[in-house]
Amino acid sequence: MPGQNPSVNVTQVVEWQDGHPRRMQDYLVVEEPLEIRVNHAPLTVTMRTPGHDLELAAGFLLTEGLIETASQISALREGTANGDSNGNLVEIELDGVHLDREQLQRNFFAASSCGVCGKASIEAIRLRRLKRLEPGFEIDAKLVCGLPEKLRGAQAIFGRTGGLHAAAVFDRSGELIAIREDVGRHNAVDKVVGWALLAGKLPLSDCILMVSGRGGFEIIQKALAAGFPVVISVSAPSSLAVQLAREMGLTLIGFLRDQRFVVYAGESRCVASRLR
Amino acid sequence: MPGQNPSVNVTQVVEWQDGHPRRMQDYLVVEEPLEIRVNHAPLTVTMRTPGHDLELAAGFLLTEGLIETASQISALREGTANGDSNGNLVEIELDGVHLDREQLQRNFFAASSCGVCGKASIEAIRLRRLKRLEPGFEIDAKLVCGLPEKLRGAQAIFGRTGGLHAAAVFDRSGELIAIREDVGRHNAVDKVVGWALLAGKLPLSDCILMVSGRGGFEIIQKALAAGFPVVISVSAPSSLAVQLAREMGLTLIGFLRDQRFVVYAGESRCVASRLR
Repeated sequence: MPGQNPSVNVTQVVEWQDGHPRRMQDYLVVEEPLEIRVNHAPLTVTMRTPGHDLELAAGFLLTEGLIETASQISALREGTANGDSNGNLVEIELDGVHLDREQLQRNFFAASSCGVCGKASIEAIRLRRLKRLEPGFEIDAKLVCGLPEKLRGAQAIFGRTGGLHAAAVFDRSGELIAIREDVGRHNAVDKVVGWALLAGKLPLSDCILMVSGRGGFEIIQKALAAGFPVVISVSAPSSLAVQLAREMGLTLIGFLRDQRFVVYAGESRCVASRLR
Repeated sequence: MPGQNPSVNVTQVVEWQDGHPRRMQDYLVVEEPLEIRVNHAPLTVTMRTPGHDLELAAGFLLTEGLIETASQISALREGTANGDSNGNLVEIELDGVHLDREQLQRNFFAASSCGVCGKASIEAIRLRRLKRLEPGFEIDAKLVCGLPEKLRGAQAIFGRTGGLHAAAVFDRSGELIAIREDVGRHNAVDKVVGWALLAGKLPLSDCILMVSGRGGFEIIQKALAAGFPVVISVSAPSSLAVQLAREMGLTLIGFLRDQRFVVYAGESRCVASRLR
């Protein structure tokens, strides 16, 4: 199977165990740059794990506030650079969308692990005209505790390489309806959101977003763009993530492990179990 | 202590345990935007954990290839935006450095978890005139296995919030000589590199860089800029990280846990223990 999977590479390594080396074969998660072009001009390059690239590009445009509906996309295809396709280019054509490149490049040289790269402030979210979520959509505490096992069961690559983040969409009954993996947490989220966008399922206002890593500011920002009322991570949120979630009425759950979790924002959606 | 520490916030949360909620106090790692200005023009905004901001800014310039020595920095200070300092601005003045802003903004709108934001390719590293590392600098396998415990012992904030990445510098005898923490893996690395730059300790050619998270392409890139011959992570490297490490002669170790680790590149630096 590996070798046929563009997301995984096989390589020779040296394993040291109890002071002794031995050569062995190991799997690596693939990380490659993807260039996204919009209306024939380069928009960004992101380091991602190949696979679901069209969803990644479409989701990125939505979660970054450049588009609001799939109908604004008039063309979406894997592109060829210099006539030679290496699979690392997606070309998008947008109808009726004015890209303010001046504003986009305001902070033009960005490096950050956060994914918001240069647009990072609570104010920035307001510029995107995101609306505060309406109350409603209750989740059962027992159902929440069952999600990590479902996520792990569905992660195809993680177990093999240990190097992938996952983003999963669960419906209100706790059924997994989509999962995507990537070396980048934000890419995994963009991929599932892109899947929903292209499948006509946005906004995901009766779904839960679960991420395998931490819940930072930009994950919340992307979740809001897709309409999720609930975000669950297995690890810690940041101060800014909690602040944004509270301002926008989003339920943010962290440290979900075994029968314990912590609700950092929007606690009213979380109810004691009626499940047996 | 929390409350006096700008890296940690205290907040009220709801903890669910075995189906029952209770209100409690919890700690959050602080995430705030830092703007870096160079020669009075904005260069980037990065989401970071406050603390060691001057080191972060200086380290960022070095690891992104904009400067090569501390002597190119003629001024480095916390700045004030609109006369009102909120602690989220660093101003740098550089002497004799031509910033090719055209090139920097080539990929002007970037969002990525990888930190290379728009300059992501093996070719990009060559543009930085980084040199292949010389052979030499052996590390003892037993010494390697002792590093995680030293890292954990020195992590001030992680235990409290669960939300921070650490980057640590160890000397050849395994002594910890610097550690920095941040919500962003790349920021943690930039902070320790900035510390070394400002302390006149670059290149770190007889030191080990250890990171608490994964070893992606950009971590290797930053390590090379600082001259580290060895990078150790407790988790998985990516395919591009391994490729770059091999091309540049860097020793890359991953999955360091207990008495086991995997050498993905530069295996000749790793030797069986002569320690008792």
